[in-house]
Order: sequence, then structure tokens, then C-alpha cells
Amino acid sequence: MENQIDGKALILACSAIGAGLAMIAGIGPGIGQGYAAGKGAEAVGRQPEAQSDIVRTMLLGAAVAETTGIYGLVVAIILLFANPLITKYMSLS
Amino acid sequence: MENQIDGKALILACSAIGAGLAMIAGIGPGIGQGYAAGKGAEAVGRQPEAQSDIVRTMLLGAAVAETTGIYGLVVAIILLFANPLITKYMSLS
Amino acid sequence: MENQIDGKALILACSAIGAGLAMIAGIGPGIGQGYAAGKGAEAVGRQPEAQSDIVRTMLLGAAVAETTGIYGLVVAIILLFANPLITKYMSLS
Amino acid sequence: MENQIDGKALILACSAIGAGLAMIAGIGPGIGQGYAAGKGAEAVGRQPEAQSDIVRTMLLGAAVAETTGIYGLVVAIILLFANPLITKYMSLS
Amino acid sequence: MENQIDGKALILACSAIGAGLAMIAGIGPGIGQGYAAGKGAEAVGRQPEAQSDIVRTMLLGAAVAETTGIYGLVVAIILLFANPLITKYMSLS
Amino acid sequence: MENQIDGKALILACSAIGAGLAMIAGIGPGIGQGYAAGKGAEAVGRQPEAQSDIVRTMLLGAAVAETTGIYGLVVAIILLFANPLITKYMSLS
Amino acid sequence: MENQIDGKALILACSAIGAGLAMIAGIGPGIGQGYAAGKGAEAVGRQPEAQSDIVRTMLLGAAVAETTGIYGLVVAIILLFANPLITKYMSLS
Amino acid sequence: MENQIDGKALILACSAIGAGLAMIAGIGPGIGQGYAAGKGAEAVGRQPEAQSDIVRTMLLGAAVAETTGIYGLVVAIILLFANPLITKYMSLS
Amino acid sequence: MENQIDGKALILACSAIGAGLAMIAGIGPGIGQGYAAGKGAEAVGRQPEAQSDIVRTMLLGAAVAETTGIYGLVVAIILLFANPLITKYMSLS
Amino acid sequence: MENQIDGKALILACSAIGAGLAMIAGIGPGIGQGYAAGKGAEAVGRQPEAQSDIVRTMLLGAAVAETTGIYGLVVAIILLFANPLITKYMSLS
Amino acid sequence: MENQIDGKALILACSAIGAGLAMIAGIGPGIGQGYAAGKGAEAVGRQPEAQSDIVRTMLLGAAVAETTGIYGLVVAIILLFANPLITKYMSLS
Amino acid sequence: MENQIDGKALILACSAIGAGLAMIAGIGPGIGQGYAAGKGAEAVGRQPEAQSDIVRTMLLGAAVAETTGIYGLVVAIILLFANPLITKYMSLS
Amino acid sequence: MENQIDGKALILACSAIGAGLAMIAGIGPGIGQGYAAGKGAEAVGRQPEAQSDIVRTMLLGAAVAETTGIYGLVVAIILLFANPLITKYMSLS
Amino acid sequence: MENQIDGKALILACSAIGAGLAMIAGIGPGIGQGYAAGKGAEAVGRQPEAQSDIVRTMLLGAAVAETTGIYGLVVAIILLFANPLITKYMSLS
Repeated sequence: MENQIDGKALILACSAIGAGLAMIAGIGPGIGQGYAAGKGAEAVGRQPEAQSDIVRTMLLGAAVAETTGIYGLVVAIILLFANPLITKYMSLS
Repeated sequence: MENQIDGKALILACSAIGAGLAMIAGIGPGIGQGYAAGKGAEAVGRQPEAQSDIVRTMLLGAAVAETTGIYGLVVAIILLFANPLITKYMSLS
Repeated sequence: MENQIDGKALILACSAIGAGLAMIAGIGPGIGQGYAAGKGAEAVGRQPEAQSDIVRTMLLGAAVAETTGIYGLVVAIILLFANPLITKYMSLS
Repeated sequence: MENQIDGKALILACSAIGAGLAMIAGIGPGIGQGYAAGKGAEAVGRQPEAQSDIVRTMLLGAAVAETTGIYGLVVAIILLFANPLITKYMSLS
Repeated sequence: MENQIDGKALILACSAIGAGLAMIAGIGPGIGQGYAAGKGAEAVGRQPEAQSDIVRTMLLGAAVAETTGIYGLVVAIILLFANPLITKYMSLS
Repeated sequence: MENQIDGKALILACSAIGAGLAMIAGIGPGIGQGYAAGKGAEAVGRQPEAQSDIVRTMLLGAAVAETTGIYGLVVAIILLFANPLITKYMSLS
Repeated sequence: MENQIDGKALILACSAIGAGLAMIAGIGPGIGQGYAAGKGAEAVGRQPEAQSDIVRTMLLGAAVAETTGIYGLVVAIILLFANPLITKYMSLS
Repeated sequence: MENQIDGKALILACSAIGAGLAMIAGIGPGIGQGYAAGKGAEAVGRQPEAQSDIVRTMLLGAAVAETTGIYGLVVAIILLFANPLITKYMSLS
Repeated sequence: MENQIDGKALILACSAIGAGLAMIAGIGPGIGQGYAAGKGAEAVGRQPEAQSDIVRTMLLGAAVAETTGIYGLVVAIILLFANPLITKYMSLS
Repeated sequence: MENQIDGKALILACSAIGAGLAMIAGIGPGIGQGYAAGKGAEAVGRQPEAQSDIVRTMLLGAAVAETTGIYGLVVAIILLFANPLITKYMSLS
Repeated sequence: MENQIDGKALILACSAIGAGLAMIAGIGPGIGQGYAAGKGAEAVGRQPEAQSDIVRTMLLGAAVAETTGIYGLVVAIILLFANPLITKYMSLS
Repeated sequence: MENQIDGKALILACSAIGAGLAMIAGIGPGIGQGYAAGKGAEAVGRQPEAQSDIVRTMLLGAAVAETTGIYGLVVAIILLFANPLITKYMSLS
Repeated sequence: MENQIDGKALILACSAIGAGLAMIAGIGPGIGQGYAAGKGAEAVGRQPEAQSDIVRTMLLGAAVAETTGIYGLVVAIILLFANPLITKYMSLS
Repeated sequence: MENQIDGKALILACSAIGAGLAMIAGIGPGIGQGYAAGKGAEAVGRQPEAQSDIVRTMLLGAAVAETTGIYGLVVAIILLFANPLITKYMSLS
């Protein structure tokens, strides 16, 4: 089974790089949610009686901030498991 | 089925890289929405009675901030699933 | 149907990279609008009675900030779906 | 119709990259206008009676900040639709 | 057993690079959670009696911020151990 | 009409890249003018009676900040429409 | 034993680069935990009687922040000692 | 008129890139002058009676800050219109 | 003993680059621990009587922050002295 | 007059790139002098009677900050108009 | 003694680059320890009678921050003087 | 006089790039001295009677900050006018 | 004496690049010690009678911050003057 | 005297690049010393009677911050004038 670098390999190799690049987006939610966590802890420290309200707000906001991290994960997972590019390529060859 | 690196492979491989690059935009909404979440939690801690108003404002603002992250996802999904570039290429060959 | 890397493929492959680069502009509106959302939530927390005014101002400002993210999306969509470069190229060949 | 990578293809491919680079300028107005939106919402929260004045000022300032984003869009659109470089090239060949 | 650089090797080598890139996302949660830890310690120092509430809030927020770091780890682990790209490649050859 | 990559194509292709690079300068005025817009809105909120003075000052300052963005646009437009480099090149050949 | 650069060497060399890239994630926890340590020391200085509570909170938060650094170490160690990519490659050859 | 990539083309192509790089300097004055505009608007809002003095100072300072942006423009214009490098090259050939 | 660049050399050369990259992680702990040291000195200056508590807290936090720097050192040392990649490579040849 | 890429062309082309790089130094004075302009306008707003003193100080300081921008311009101008490298090269050939 | 670029040269050349990269880690401790020195001087200025305690704390913290810089030096020194990679390479040839 | 790219041309071309890189150091003094100018103007605004003392201090500090910019200029000038590398090269040939 | 690019030249050329990279570490101590100098001057201005204590503390801290800059210098000097890599290389040839 | 690119040229060309890189370290002292100058001017403005003490402290601190800039200059000067790498190379040929 002897094969050179061919089109399939190039697409799949670039998919691995692309998946890695997509994960870098996680820097943003990481910083942002950590800021939210710090502010939340500070607010709870000031008004312990409002804890449930603060935590609910913090988690709601953090859940929205999570989305772009999830988008990156989704794109990476698609590139890895359901790679439509290679499927397209094979259907065209 | 033996094929070298051809035009189709180059387009699809660059689409994978492009999809990864597009996801990097998610750094922005991640930081911004996390800031909003932190400020929201802080505000709820100060005026628990205004919680529903604060949360609604925070979510409204975060929803707008989400858009550019979604744009990136849309472009990546188009590049992956409905890649119009390769379609164009095949129709021209 | 055997073809090498040709001019059409190069243009379309670079269009995929260009579309990805254009989406990176989304980092800006993401951070900015998140800042607006946080400041809006903070302001609502202080003057709940002015909520509708604050939210309208915040959304108006965020809508303007959205524009450059939309510009990036528009350029990416043009590069993907109505790629005028390849059309030009074919009309010249 | 068989053609190798030629001068026309190189110009058009680099135009796609250049259009993507030009859109990155959108990071600036995005951050700046978002800051303006946040400050505007904060100011409206403090003086709701001055809302129309604040909003007008904010929009005026944001409109000026928008310009460099529009410049980037204009250059990208010119590169894509009215590419004068390829026109020049064809007239010289 | 003598073999040149082939498609399989390129895919697996790029998977190693991609796994490394994906881990860079860990910069974000690291900064964010450290901020949360500092704010938590500060808040505990001010209201020692609210310690359990503060810590719970801080950990809850940090757990959310952890997610994008875990996403990066998941993608890296998939690239390393269950590399679907090479599986795809072998099934196509 | 068959032509390889020649000097004319290289100059025009690099002009497209150069025009894109020149637009990146727009990040600066975008951030700066947005800061001015925010400070202006804040100031109007505090002294609504001084609105016309504040707005005039803000616009005057923003107009100056605009200049470097315009310089970038001018260079890009020259590179695209009145490309003196290719003219020089043709006159020398 | 004379051998050229082959697929095995490429995979293992890229694994070394990937391991180095993965460690860069350590910048994040380093900054974050240092911030936590500084805030902790400050808080202890203000309320020496709450020292054990502050330290426990600080360490708990820092432990969570440590995780992404450990993820990077884990991926690097896997790439170095239990490199599944080369195992996969050998099983496929 | 058939010509390959020659020395003249390389010099002129690099001049286009160099002109683009020189314009990036515009990021600095853009941010700085915008800061000045914001501070000026704020100061006018506080002492409207000192408006002419504030504006004169702001413009004087911004005019100085403009210089490095103009330097970049000058170098770019020289590279584009009065390119002394290609003149030198032709005189030496 | 005459030998060309072979697989062994590529792996070991990339290990040297990888070791250098891994050390860059030290930027993080350096900034963070310095922040902790500054805050600790400030706190000692305010409450000299709590010095031992402050220093213990500062050192405890800094020790945790040290870890990611040590991880980087460990990976670099492994790449240099106990390079498992080259061992693997030799066992496979 | 037919000539390939030769040493003279390489030197002059790199001079164009070098001139562009040298202008990037202008980012620094642009930001710094803008800060000075903003602080000056603020100070004039507070003590209009000290205007001449403030402006003189601001301009003196900005003049010093200008120097590194001028150095960059000088190096670029030398590279463009009085290029001593090509002179040296011709005298050695 | 005539020899081409061989494996030994590649390893040693990359070791020089790697040693340079490893030293970049020194940016972190430099900033951090300088912050500590500034805070220490400030604290001594406020409580000169606590000088010895403040200095001891500052130096203790700075000593810990020094470590990652030393790690980088150690790796660079190993790469330069006791390069185990080239030893390994020679033992394998 | 026909010559290919030779060693002399490579050294002189890299000298042009190196001179451009050296000028980038000017970003630092530009920002720093601008900060000094702003602080100086602010201080003069507060104590106009201490103007000469403030200005002397500001200029003294800025003169020291100037040095690294001058170092960069010196290295660039040496590379351009008294290039000792090419002299060395010619003496060795 | 005619020789091509050989292993010795590659090692020594990379040593020059590595020495330059190692010096970049000087950015850190430069910023940090300047911060210390500013804080020291401020503290002396507030308590002139504690000048000797403040200066001693500032210099002690700055001396520690100096170390990583010196490490970079040491590595660069070793690479330049006592280059052990080329010695090793010659002993192996 | 006809010669191709040889080892001597490569070493000297890389020395020019390395000298340029080494000067970039000047960014750090430039920012730091400018900060010191600004703080010094501010302090003199507050306590003109302590001017000599403040200036002496500022200059002492700035002199220490200068060192890493001087290190970069020293390495660049060595690379340019007393290049030990080319001396070594010639002694080995």
C-alpha cells in the first residue's frame, strides 16, 4: 500500500490545523467568564442574602458568553468527525 | 483511484483553514459578554429588586454582542457544508 | 476529469482564506457591544425607572457598532457566494 | 479550456486576500463605538431628561468612528467588484 | 520497511500541531479563573462569615470558565487518540 | 492569449496586498474616535446646556484623528486606481 | 542503518513542536494565580484573623485555574511518552 | 511584449508592500488624537467658557501627534509616485 | 562518517525548538509572582505585625503559580535529556 | 534591455520593505503625543490662566517624543533617496 | 575538510534558535520584579520604620518570580554547553 | 556589467531589513516621552509657579528615555553608511 | 578559498539570530525598572526624609529585576564569543 | 572577483538581522523611563523643594532601566564591528 501525499491527505491535514485554530476562540470566554465569576463572588460577599439572584444572573450571562466557545468546538468536531470537505472531495473525484 | 494534489483539494483544504480563522472572532464576544455578565451580577447584588430589569438589559446587550460570533459560525458552516467555492469550481471545469 | 492546480483553484482557495480573515473583524464589535451591555445593565440597576431609555440608547449604540462586523460578513458572503473574482477570471480567459 | 496559474489568477487571488485584510480594520470602530454606546447608556441612566442630546452626540461621534470601517469596506468592494488591477493588467497585455 | 513522507504521515503530523494549538486556549481560563480566585479571596477577607457562599459562587463561575479549556483538551485528545481524520483517510484509500 | 506570471502581474498582485495592509491603519482612528464619542456623550449628559460646544470640540478632534485613516484610504485608492508603479514599470520596459 | 526523512520522523518532529506549543498555555494560569496570590496576601494583611479562610479560598480558586496548565502538560506528555500518532502510523504502514 | 519577473518588477512590487506597511503607523495617531478629542470634549463640558483655549491646545497637541502619520504618508507617496529606488536601479543597469 | 539530514536529525532539531517554545510559558508566572511580591510588600508595609502571615500566604500563592513554569521546564528537560521521541524513532527503524 | 533579478534589485527591493518597517515606529509617538494633547487640553480647561505655560510644556515634551518618529523618517528617506547600500554595492562590483 | 549541511549542523543551529527563544521568558520576571520593586519603594516611603520587613518580603517574592527566568537560562545553557541532543545523535549514528 | 545575486547583495539587502527592524524600537520612547509630556503639562497646570522645575525634570527624564531610540538610530546608520559587515566580507574574499 | 554554505556557516548564522532573540528579553526589565524608578521618585517626593531608604529599596528590587536581562546578555555573549555549538560541531566532524 | 552566496555572506547577513532584532529591546526602557520621567515631573510639581532628591532618584532608577537597552546595543555593536562569528568561521575553514 504505497501512496504519496494526495488531495485527501492535504484536506484532512488542514482540517486538523483548522480544528486547532478554531479552539483558540476559547481564550475569550475563558477570560470573560472568569471576570464574571470574580465579580459574582465579590457581589455575593457584599450581599450574601442576594446570593441566589447574583448567581443566577452570573450563570445566565456566562452561559451566553459560552456560546462562541461552543461554536468553536462545534466547528472543530465537524472538521474531525463529520468532515464534509473530504466527503465533498470524494464525491467529486 | 490515484490522484495528485489538484485544484479541488486545494480549495477544500483552504476552506478548512478559513473556517478555523473565522472562529477566532469568537474571542471578542467571549470577553465582552463575560464583562456584561460580571457587571450584571454586580448590579443585581446592589439592587436585587431590579433583577429582572437588569437581566433583561444584560441579555439584550449580550444578544447583540453575540451576532459577530454567529457570523463567524455561519461563514464556517457555509465553508464546511455548503461550500459554494468548490461548487463554482466544478461548474467551471 | 483530471486537472492540476490551476488559476481558478488558486482564486477560490484564496477566497476561502480571505473570507476567514474578514470574519476576524468580529472581535471588535464583540468586545465593544459586550462593554455596552455591561454598562447598560449597570445603569439599569441604578435607575430602573429609566430602563427603556437606557436600553434604547444601548441598542442604538450597539447597532452602530455592529456595522463593521456586518461589513466583514458581507465581504465574506460575497467571496463565497457571488465571487466576482472568479467571474472576472472566467470572462477574461 | 486548460490553463495554468497565470498572472490574472495571481492578481485576483491576492485581491481576495487583500479584501480580507482590509476588513480587519473593523476591529477598531467595533471597540470604539461599543465604548461610546456604553458611555451613552450610562449617561442616559444618570440624566434621562437629556436623552435626546446624549444620543445625538453619541451617534454623531460613532458616525465619525464608522468612517474607517467604511473605508475598509469600500476598498474590499473595489477589489472584489470593480477590480481596477485586473483591468489594468488586461489593458497592458 | 522503507517509506517516504506520505499522506498518513502528513495528517498525523498536522494533528500533533493542531493539538498543540488547541491547548493555547487554556490561556483564557487561566487568567479568568485566577482573577476569580483573587476576587474570592478578597471577598472572604472582608466577610469571613459569608465564606461558603462566596466560595460556592466563585467555584460555580470558575467551573463555567473551565469549559473552553476542556473543549481544547477534548479536541486535542480526539486528535491524539481517536484521530478520525486518519481513520477517514484509510477508509478512502 | 496565453501568459505566464510576469512582472506586471507581480506588481499588481502586491498592490492588492499593500492596499489591504494600508487599511489596517483604520483600527487606530476607530478606537480613538469611539473614545471621543463616549466622552462626548458623557459630557453632554453632565452639561446638556453646553452641548453645542462639546459636540463641536469632539467633532473637531475626531476630524483630526480621521486623517490617518484617510491617508490609508488615499494610498489604497492610489494603489488600486492610479497605480503609478505599473505605469512606471511599463514606461521602463 | 541509513535512512532519509520519512513519515515517522515528520510525525515525531511535529510532536516536539506541538508539545512546546501546548506548554505556552501556562502563561494564563501563571498570571492568574499570581494575581490571586497578590490579592490573598493583601487580604491577609487586612484581616490576619481570617487568614485560614482567605488562604483556603485562594488555593481553591488557584487549583481550578491550574487545570488548563495541567491540560497542556498532559497533552505534551502524551505527545512525548505515549505518542498515539506514531503508534497509529506504524499500525497502518 | 513578453517579459518574465525581473529586477524592476521586484522593486516595484516590494514598494507596494512597503507603502502598505508604512501606513500602519497611522494606528498610533488615530488612537492618540481620539484620546485628545475625548479629553477635550470632557474639558469643554466642564468649563464651556474656556472652550477656545481648550480647543486650541487640543488641536496644537493633535497637530504634533499627526506628524508621524504624515511621515508614513510621505514615505508611501514617495514609494508610489517618485520611487527613487527604481530610478536608481535604471541608472545603474 | 558522512551523513545527510536524516529523520533523527529532524526530530532532535525540532526538540530544541520545542524546548525553547515551552520555556516561553515562564512569562506568565514571572508577571504573576512579581505582582504577588509587590502586593505582599505593600501589605507588610501597612501591617508589619502580620508579616509572617502575609509572607506565608504570598509564598503559598506564588508556589501554585510556579507550577506552570515548572511544567514548561519539565517538558523542555524531557525533550533534551530523556527525549522519548528519538527513542521511539530508533525502536521503529 | 533584458535583465533577471540581480543583486541590485534585491538590495533596492529590501530597502523599500525596510523603509516601510521603519515608519511603524510612528505608532509610539502618535499614541504618546495624543496622550500629551489630551492631558494638556484637560489642564488648560482647569487653569485657563496657565494656558501658555501648559502649552509650552506640552509642546516641549511632545517635541522630544517626536524624535524617534523623525529617526524612522530619516532612515526611510536615506534608504529611498541616498541609499548608501546600493552605492556600496556598485563600488564593490 | 569539506562538508555540506548535515544533521549535526541542523541540530546545533536549531539549538541556537531554541536558546534564544528560551530567553524571551525573561520578559515576565522583568516586568513582575520591577512592579515589586516599585511597590516596595512606595511602601518603604510610607513606613520607613518597617523597611527591613518590606524589603525582606519584596526580595522573597522576587526570588520566587526569578525562577522561571532561571529555568529559561538553564535550558539555554544546557542547549549551548551540554547539548544532549547532539550527543544522542552521535551515539545513534 | 552582468551579475547574479551574490553574497555582497545578500548582506546589503539584509542590512536594509535590519535597519528597519532597529527603528521599531522607537515605539517605546515615543509612548514613554508622550506620557512624560502629558504628566508634565498636567503638573504645570497645577503649579504654574514650579514650571521651570517641572519642565527641567521632564526633559531630563525624557532625555534618558530617548537613549534607546538613539541606539536604534545609531545601529541603523552604521548598517547604512559604515556597514562593517560588507567591509569584513570584502576583506575576507 | 571557495566554499559553499556549509554546516559551520548555518550554525554561526543561527547563533547571530539567536543572540538577537535573546536580547528581546530586555523589554521586560526595561518596563519594570522604569516603573520602579517612577514609583521611587514619587515616594521620595512625598517623604524626602526617607530618601536613602526608598532609593536603597528601589535599587535592590531593580537589581533583582535586572537579572533576566543579564541572563539574555550572557546567552548572547556565549553565542557570540564562546560559541560552544560550533566547537562541538568541529570536534564531531 | 565573482562569488556566489557562500557561508561568510550568510553569517554576515544574519548578523545584520540579529543586530536589528537586538535593538527591539529598546521598547522596554523607552516606555519605562518615560513613565519615570512623568512621575518625576509630577512629584516635582507637588514638592518643588524636594526637586534635587526626586530627580536624583528618578535618574538613578532610569539608569538601571537603561541597562537592558545598552545590552542590546552592545550585542548589536559586537555583531557589526567585532563579529566573532565570522572570525570563528574563517579560522575553521
